Amino acid sequence: MNKSFAIGIDIGGTTTSLGLADRRGQILMQATMPTRGFETVEQYIAAIETEVKKFEAHAGKDNINGVGVGAPNGNFYTGEIVDAPNMPWRGRIQLADMMSNALGYKVTLTNDANATAMGEMMYGAARGMKDFIMVTLGTGVGSGFVANGQLIYGHDGFAGELGHVIAVRDGRACGCGCNGCMERYCSATGIVITANELLAQRDGTSLLRNKQDNLSAKVIHDAAMAGDALAIEIFDYTAMILGQTLANAVAITSPQAIILFGGLAKAGDVLYTPVKKYMEADLLSMYQGKIELLPSALPDADAAILGASALAW
Amino acid sequence: MNKSFAIGIDIGGTTTSLGLADRRGQILMQATMPTRGFETVEQYIAAIETEVKKFEAHAGKDNINGVGVGAPNGNFYTGEIVDAPNMPWRGRIQLADMMSNALGYKVTLTNDANATAMGEMMYGAARGMKDFIMVTLGTGVGSGFVANGQLIYGHDGFAGELGHVIAVRDGRACGCGCNGCMERYCSATGIVITANELLAQRDGTSLLRNKQDNLSAKVIHDAAMAGDALAIEIFDYTAMILGQTLANAVAITSPQAIILFGGLAKAGDVLYTPVKKYMEADLLSMYQGKIELLPSALPDADAAILGASALAW
Repeated sequence: MNKSFAIGIDIGGTTTSLGLADRRGQILMQATMPTRGFETVEQYIAAIETEVKKFEAHAGKDNINGVGVGAPNGNFYTGEIVDAPNMPWRGRIQLADMMSNALGYKVTLTNDANATAMGEMMYGAARGMKDFIMVTLGTGVGSGFVANGQLIYGHDGFAGELGHVIAVRDGRACGCGCNGCMERYCSATGIVITANELLAQRDGTSLLRNKQDNLSAKVIHDAAMAGDALAIEIFDYTAMILGQTLANAVAITSPQAIILFGGLAKAGDVLYTPVKKYMEADLLSMYQGKIELLPSALPDADAAILGASALAW
Repeated sequence: MNKSFAIGIDIGGTTTSLGLADRRGQILMQATMPTRGFETVEQYIAAIETEVKKFEAHAGKDNINGVGVGAPNGNFYTGEIVDAPNMPWRGRIQLADMMSNALGYKVTLTNDANATAMGEMMYGAARGMKDFIMVTLGTGVGSGFVANGQLIYGHDGFAGELGHVIAVRDGRACGCGCNGCMERYCSATGIVITANELLAQRDGTSLLRNKQDNLSAKVIHDAAMAGDALAIEIFDYTAMILGQTLANAVAITSPQAIILFGGLAKAGDVLYTPVKKYMEADLLSMYQGKIELLPSALPDADAAILGASALAW
């Protein structure tokens, strides 16, 4: 038995992506299916099983080492998904056990940002690193912290919620019940809120003024690239909150690098230059100039699957 | 060779404490000597050697497993002390190598807060814990983070500077060059600054009014214990900054417990109750009510030596 392959499954709020990967991070087969629309979790898992059978037909069941799953609020220790926002299931779902029984593999589950961190460490920008911070800038903000070459899961398996660090005292209300959480500023959602606030506060022309019903991180980025001053200010504000939050995280874990993933992470210098500036300004001198700020190096479409598959090795 | 003993050395800005400890955390012999007043580092180490010889006469050199050293800005990876404030030596001092050559033992060095964390894990309040945060509230604020049963040293050996997390944006100037560092509020020094600020801002009587030239954390605590409203407010403000900073750290490492050490850590309910309240208010629901806030359980006079000796096992 060669065990040359692993199955990675990324469970998103809308879509579930599955892939068959080898040890070098090549994805040999992949599939997508809806996460929603199933009456029960069992039916959802049965649909996953149908796809997994196709992978087995290709690779041979004996050659597959196991299954890794990345899911919002996925808990590494218990294998459960607990009260995940944007997911069709409420409460505690013992997904790893249920999937293991159905598929006949060891199933390792963690949250999506931790899975991405594993993927970066095995195949991406963090290859060879033992201490880094992974930050996923999506609809929300997720994070995975690696120290001594290991993911920090924390006592309960729920470590790494940098998006819910309070970045602005008495700031924007967050769905979690607190005010001022970093993800209300630095996510794709947050940057649009900032854009609307600044459009209301500032006079003067902007490429964004006639797009107010249709604002997105991409629209703001396009405007910034075209030299729009307000769009650049929006990025600068976003970068300030992100950089300040990262500086506080650096004081705790002193990483070699911080790796950004997700749509906003592709914004380039208009984001990275001010993030670095604000982060460095808040750092102790012994950390200054040492920490790399890098975009993810995982191939875009495959990142989530690769990250999940990395859990299975 | 039994190797039943270890030597712990705690280097403070004024005093160096040394002890001979066994595996159960009993200190069999101890000594103190000044840290300052030596013309060279070599002369300081020679004075340490004199004390170590006495331990060897008692335990036998072959029975001593090694030497652990806790020192401000001590670096676990390099064995150096780098630009430590309040120390007689500037620049990079390769203390572990120099001491190892002089004493003939493996010498393991880390910063004083990390050493205390090791001591708590082996002999104190964190026995059996794999994920906890150690916070030392002294003249400054130090911290040690343990995850997966290991200290987080970070890429460069300098992780765990919770005292220099920016807790108050544009807050009090810190010696590190930043403004608003947590230790400017939550150290023994910081609480006195808060007391002076509030004495100036508030009218009304207070036990602290006629002690303004002689304020200390202990004087403020005594007043709070006597029911003085202003002193209680000073503790509440200190606890707010500490609790908010801890909440953000919890979102990163999700610890089982947070252990407080140092003079302020003995303040009891007047500190612990509001710290818990403010921390819980900033936590995601999945962390709420789970994290123990505990005082150090290391015997007071021996804590620093025990922490350092724990490094040598």
